[in-house]
Amino acid sequence: MPPTPEPQNAARSLRARDASADTFGIELVTSAPDRAVASMQVRSDMCNGFGILHGGMTFLLADSAMAFASNAEEGMALASSAEIDWLAPVSAGDVLTATAERRWSSSRSALWDVSVTNRSGELVAIVRGRTRQTAGQANSEPR
Amino acid sequence: MPPTPEPQNAARSLRARDASADTFGIELVTSAPDRAVASMQVRSDMCNGFGILHGGMTFLLADSAMAFASNAEEGMALASSAEIDWLAPVSAGDVLTATAERRWSSSRSALWDVSVTNRSGELVAIVRGRTRQTAGQANSEPR
Amino acid sequence: MPPTPEPQNAARSLRARDASADTFGIELVTSAPDRAVASMQVRSDMCNGFGILHGGMTFLLADSAMAFASNAEEGMALASSAEIDWLAPVSAGDVLTATAERRWSSSRSALWDVSVTNRSGELVAIVRGRTRQTAGQANSEPR
Amino acid sequence: MPPTPEPQNAARSLRARDASADTFGIELVTSAPDRAVASMQVRSDMCNGFGILHGGMTFLLADSAMAFASNAEEGMALASSAEIDWLAPVSAGDVLTATAERRWSSSRSALWDVSVTNRSGELVAIVRGRTRQTAGQANSEPR
Repeated sequence: MPPTPEPQNAARSLRARDASADTFGIELVTSAPDRAVASMQVRSDMCNGFGILHGGMTFLLADSAMAFASNAEEGMALASSAEIDWLAPVSAGDVLTATAERRWSSSRSALWDVSVTNRSGELVAIVRGRTRQTAGQANSEPR
Repeated sequence: MPPTPEPQNAARSLRARDASADTFGIELVTSAPDRAVASMQVRSDMCNGFGILHGGMTFLLADSAMAFASNAEEGMALASSAEIDWLAPVSAGDVLTATAERRWSSSRSALWDVSVTNRSGELVAIVRGRTRQTAGQANSEPR
Repeated sequence: MPPTPEPQNAARSLRARDASADTFGIELVTSAPDRAVASMQVRSDMCNGFGILHGGMTFLLADSAMAFASNAEEGMALASSAEIDWLAPVSAGDVLTATAERRWSSSRSALWDVSVTNRSGELVAIVRGRTRQTAGQANSEPR
Repeated sequence: MPPTPEPQNAARSLRARDASADTFGIELVTSAPDRAVASMQVRSDMCNGFGILHGGMTFLLADSAMAFASNAEEGMALASSAEIDWLAPVSAGDVLTATAERRWSSSRSALWDVSVTNRSGELVAIVRGRTRQTAGQANSEPR
């Protein structure tokens, strides 16, 4: 019988297989069953037509932190819904840090609050998301 | 006095200046003051540790369609909040189409519903977002 | 074996047992498995300290329409989350109509869009909600 | 020149004029510019067809706490949008307490997190809402 993976290791393993995290330069800073921190360097090729970071990238970083936190234990959790409030614009060259914390959970469902801060520690966005444990493969799993 | 830009042209001009849309291969298909359609080819380097499209990328495409639609007229609109429901997983090689439609607006605020479908026409996500007209520069504008 | 209840009858039966709908004067206008319409007369004792309808009452009416629509078929569906955008203030003496429509569903989950209009047909609020089929009693069911 | 009202007094004055709070038995427990606590006794005439508290009533209590907190200072703040996650069913006879806390604010906008707990201290719902300062009367103010 294989040992239950360490939380840190399960999230690290998910990160290691994550091609999109490589593409966007997303680092997994720390993880625990109820918490994960991820960071991302803001590049000019992530900025929109207003010359600021595409709001979707801020969301993507927060969503990544939530994915690492919700998959820190055995099993597989997928997000079903999430909302974001953008609070301040972000510029190329900055570094964003997303901290996902479990706000509530039941046997299969969990609710996460994610804060995204810039290098000065200013809050630039907050995200609330919902995840659900699934039994099988992401591609075959009905929601 | 410069002429008011055509809706199609204002959104096209925003797209032309959008480095992130180049990075992610986001195309502006059509735009009007109350509607825009954007599409994106799903690449394997956008997929997460489960081998499916990062949910943040689905959101980013929907957010882009909303940005094109809300900036089809003179002035500058920024999104303040949005929520997404993910309805089906998406695989590399697929093509997503996001259609943003204005659901309500007042003098400065608007509410948008965005549908994201895959190549088979299946609904894979829906997004609702809020935008607000701003007077100045994205970087200097208090929210 | 008892016959499967007619959609109209299942929702009507739920309404008949609903003490809160009596308290608030909520009428079930029509129902079908994917749609329900409910209405409410706005009373002065529902108004807040600003002299307008408490925004929570607008939400409650929309939530009721969603409950009737999602329980129009056999089984029991409970809402897990919902969001509201308030678009215009509502005054005592007006009559609100909430129309809930199914936007998406899987085997157990469904997503609903609810529009709330006043007597003039003006849109005063929109709500998006999520429901889930449960097997047992509301009080004993883990979420 | 009249003195600026004490936070406690401004919220208390709003509560004193609030007919709906009388109707639903909502008490303002404490208030401050960044926080308010409100409570409500759950009555059987607030329960739905499943015999549990109508989810809209849980939302209404949370929305009330947010209104008291956001109007604890001079001026008038109206909620523009909010979302709720229902975490556990609530029965008649219980007492709910809603605590609204300011999560972020700018010159005119604010973001609030509200927790709703039952008599045992169990979390039964969480709400996130957005408010905006307005200049005039609720009924005449365009959003």
